[in-house]
Amino acid sequence: MNAYDALMAFERQTQALGQVAGRLGWDQETVMPRAAAPQRAEESEAMEQVLHARRTDPRVGDWLAAIDDAALDAVGRASLRHIRRRYARSTRVPAALAGELARLTSEAQGHWAEARAADDFAGFAPVLTRIVALKREEAAALAAGGDAYDALLDDYEPGATGAELQAMFDALRPRLVDLRARILGASHQPAPLAGTFDEQAQMALTTRLAQAFGYDLAHGRIDKAVHPFSSGSGLDVRITTRTSPTDAFGAVYSTIHETGHAAYEQHIDPAYLLTPLGAGVSMGVHESQSRIYENQLGRSRAFTGWLFGAFKAAFGDLSVADAEAFYAAANRVHPGYIRTESDEVQYNLHVLLRFDLERQMIAGSLAVADLEEAWNARFEADFGVKVTRASQGCLQDVHWSVGLFGYFPTYSLGNVYAGCLHKALRAEMPDLDAHLAKGDPATPARWLADKLQRHGGLYEPKELITKACGEAPSEVPLLDYLETKFSEIYRL
Amino acid sequence: MNAYDALMAFERQTQALGQVAGRLGWDQETVMPRAAAPQRAEESEAMEQVLHARRTDPRVGDWLAAIDDAALDAVGRASLRHIRRRYARSTRVPAALAGELARLTSEAQGHWAEARAADDFAGFAPVLTRIVALKREEAAALAAGGDAYDALLDDYEPGATGAELQAMFDALRPRLVDLRARILGASHQPAPLAGTFDEQAQMALTTRLAQAFGYDLAHGRIDKAVHPFSSGSGLDVRITTRTSPTDAFGAVYSTIHETGHAAYEQHIDPAYLLTPLGAGVSMGVHESQSRIYENQLGRSRAFTGWLFGAFKAAFGDLSVADAEAFYAAANRVHPGYIRTESDEVQYNLHVLLRFDLERQMIAGSLAVADLEEAWNARFEADFGVKVTRASQGCLQDVHWSVGLFGYFPTYSLGNVYAGCLHKALRAEMPDLDAHLAKGDPATPARWLADKLQRHGGLYEPKELITKACGEAPSEVPLLDYLETKFSEIYRL
Repeated sequence: MNAYDALMAFERQTQALGQVAGRLGWDQETVMPRAAAPQRAEESEAMEQVLHARRTDPRVGDWLAAIDDAALDAVGRASLRHIRRRYARSTRVPAALAGELARLTSEAQGHWAEARAADDFAGFAPVLTRIVALKREEAAALAAGGDAYDALLDDYEPGATGAELQAMFDALRPRLVDLRARILGASHQPAPLAGTFDEQAQMALTTRLAQAFGYDLAHGRIDKAVHPFSSGSGLDVRITTRTSPTDAFGAVYSTIHETGHAAYEQHIDPAYLLTPLGAGVSMGVHESQSRIYENQLGRSRAFTGWLFGAFKAAFGDLSVADAEAFYAAANRVHPGYIRTESDEVQYNLHVLLRFDLERQMIAGSLAVADLEEAWNARFEADFGVKVTRASQGCLQDVHWSVGLFGYFPTYSLGNVYAGCLHKALRAEMPDLDAHLAKGDPATPARWLADKLQRHGGLYEPKELITKACGEAPSEVPLLDYLETKFSEIYRL
Repeated sequence: MNAYDALMAFERQTQALGQVAGRLGWDQETVMPRAAAPQRAEESEAMEQVLHARRTDPRVGDWLAAIDDAALDAVGRASLRHIRRRYARSTRVPAALAGELARLTSEAQGHWAEARAADDFAGFAPVLTRIVALKREEAAALAAGGDAYDALLDDYEPGATGAELQAMFDALRPRLVDLRARILGASHQPAPLAGTFDEQAQMALTTRLAQAFGYDLAHGRIDKAVHPFSSGSGLDVRITTRTSPTDAFGAVYSTIHETGHAAYEQHIDPAYLLTPLGAGVSMGVHESQSRIYENQLGRSRAFTGWLFGAFKAAFGDLSVADAEAFYAAANRVHPGYIRTESDEVQYNLHVLLRFDLERQMIAGSLAVADLEEAWNARFEADFGVKVTRASQGCLQDVHWSVGLFGYFPTYSLGNVYAGCLHKALRAEMPDLDAHLAKGDPATPARWLADKLQRHGGLYEPKELITKACGEAPSEVPLLDYLETKFSEIYRL
């Protein structure tokens, strides 16, 4: 066997084992017996060690050295690009550092949960200080002389840079701060959707919606979980949802969101199954799919017009009188401290704040000891209110405690990409609203599958978005869309 | 780290990965999306290769060579006994032979299913001939000069020999043949439990029964599967069941059976978690637990007396008038060709037939081409009827087609062990029937947990049964129990 074939056979098994490890995570969040956790921790760690050993296997280095990428076709070159990047990342970080980070971030989750429950940032600061120190070491090892933050970002959004995101986000921020202030100050404030909603009817409706958006249940399943997620690639892509008796929108929109992630995985060219191209190409592109499904399609006036009827059929009389009030309720902007409870307008402001602060922490210009003060000052500047509890401020997210730095900006990048894709979709599909109004999001979803999802990891993220949209990505379409939509709803 | 500690740390991870592989099997039979099978096959194969590489890792050989077993305590010595046995077995078979067997038996399942559907033994015989040839090669490699069949048996029942089982089974057979004939010729024939049984009520009742027998749902769960099974060790032991609208006994007794397997795993000393002692010690001992739960306890007059009331509460009026008729219905013996549909009396006759034939095939004294004729002649001798279709004869079980030789006898050995344990239990717990009559099988189950289950792999199988029973195992208690019980029911 030549080096390329040997490498790809080895990689295929690694991909298969990665799917097994991922499914172990699915099992843990959905069906695992409640008292099985200590054993599961050992099982997951053993799987991680198997995967790490394969990612750093010296044979991979030998094969990579023996392969002339220029002699490969486009699929082969793209596959090698992924494997070379991962191998370099896996081998650059000293094993001792990787081990210490794994141990520390594993323990830190418990400390973070306790600190959040007690609103005690000072109690958690020493742990986070140590995490940031180790992440800076890791970033330096990965960057090999380049920018430290970019090196971390590269794990989630290959090719993106902190400087480029900074420019994009700096353009987003003032218009979003302004739009938010005008919305919350508007005299017309739509009513929320109040009431109680049968939870079995919610499950039936969300299952129907997932399928309507193109989710294939022959290659997937829907279960309940505390925090909804999508899991797996290829022929087995599972989603989870949650229901609440007082919030049917929560179940519906979290399901549509996860359907976006899952449909992306399900629509990748079957030829890429269990290869480096057989999964979504980046966190930002993944989030663009979940966001455009959830927001630009799912929360559109056209689709909510259809959904209003589906809600009445599922739940009986509603607290809102007509489709227009239902549309406004599904897009309601309300003050709040919590990113995950936020809406299309405010969400990116939450993310931009985190991006700026984590970039400073990795650069060394913001000490963890000063994080809470910096967070609260920035929050007041953008949201106009003071944070009084750390659990509503810098302790609200788990990310940093588990070592995720460079992950937050992919949320907003996903929104920006969704804005670009939505603009291109509307231009190419003039009757988009007609499809949505009759409860058919599958037609625009197929456009996304054809333009973007099927390519898997063939192109680099920005190249993929540019190809799909016919122009380079920019924050402008998202801003235009938000200003137009919310100016109408709030009569600005 | 010394060799022993290094080996045990390595072994612990291997055990954890084994649990992951096992859970992948559980997932496949319960929750896997129906079209995910091709990907799952690659995932399972990748896990098997990881496990095989660990089992044959040369470091294990080095560690084993460096350890002085005599310097260890009882737990250490027992652990080493398991690891040495497994390492020897894993390394004795040439990789090429192991690979060919894996490929052939994987393909053979499809051929077997087709042949069974067509009642075409001749069509399957060439495949089975090749399997037997390879199994004989494997057995010779494993036996290293010893008996070939014993070498295969050792995988499922360490320490047992074909000759010893033959002596035991030769003593079982004539009394069982005689008892079966007298039962089926008796003038008193109890009526079956006829009717339709709500399937949700069946699930509720089986869940309650599993718990009553000591199954811990905090460390387990119950799902539906086509063929009920128990899966996993330690803190995550799951069972499955099936329901049929016309057969509530099927759900109830398959659940009690699987509860026996699962309770065994759940009751093993927590100190043995993820060590070589942390799982049931052999197939025969495992089956003894499932069988004593199902039959000697679950199908006893005392327990069915209580169950009669539970059935009426769950399903309403029954086709049988009283507890005695219910007891007889739960123990009904009826003619049939199929092992898995059999009863306490006839089951072992089905197994003994397979044991004799597979031992001859491995010895080379029975050619596969002559198997069908040999099967049918033996069946007629023991059961008094002619087999007319291979699907009701030598093609009914999947075992041989997947390379399982030496497995069948553990079913009957389990029944023999269950007979011994039941005799000891009755002697030590004079009020056993009083517990069962009030729907409390947990008290005898705790006796089994204390006498046998908690020891996991600490003792060799026969040693364990001898310790639990206070005497060496024999087929006599099982025969006495069956003759007494069925003579009463059938008024012989």
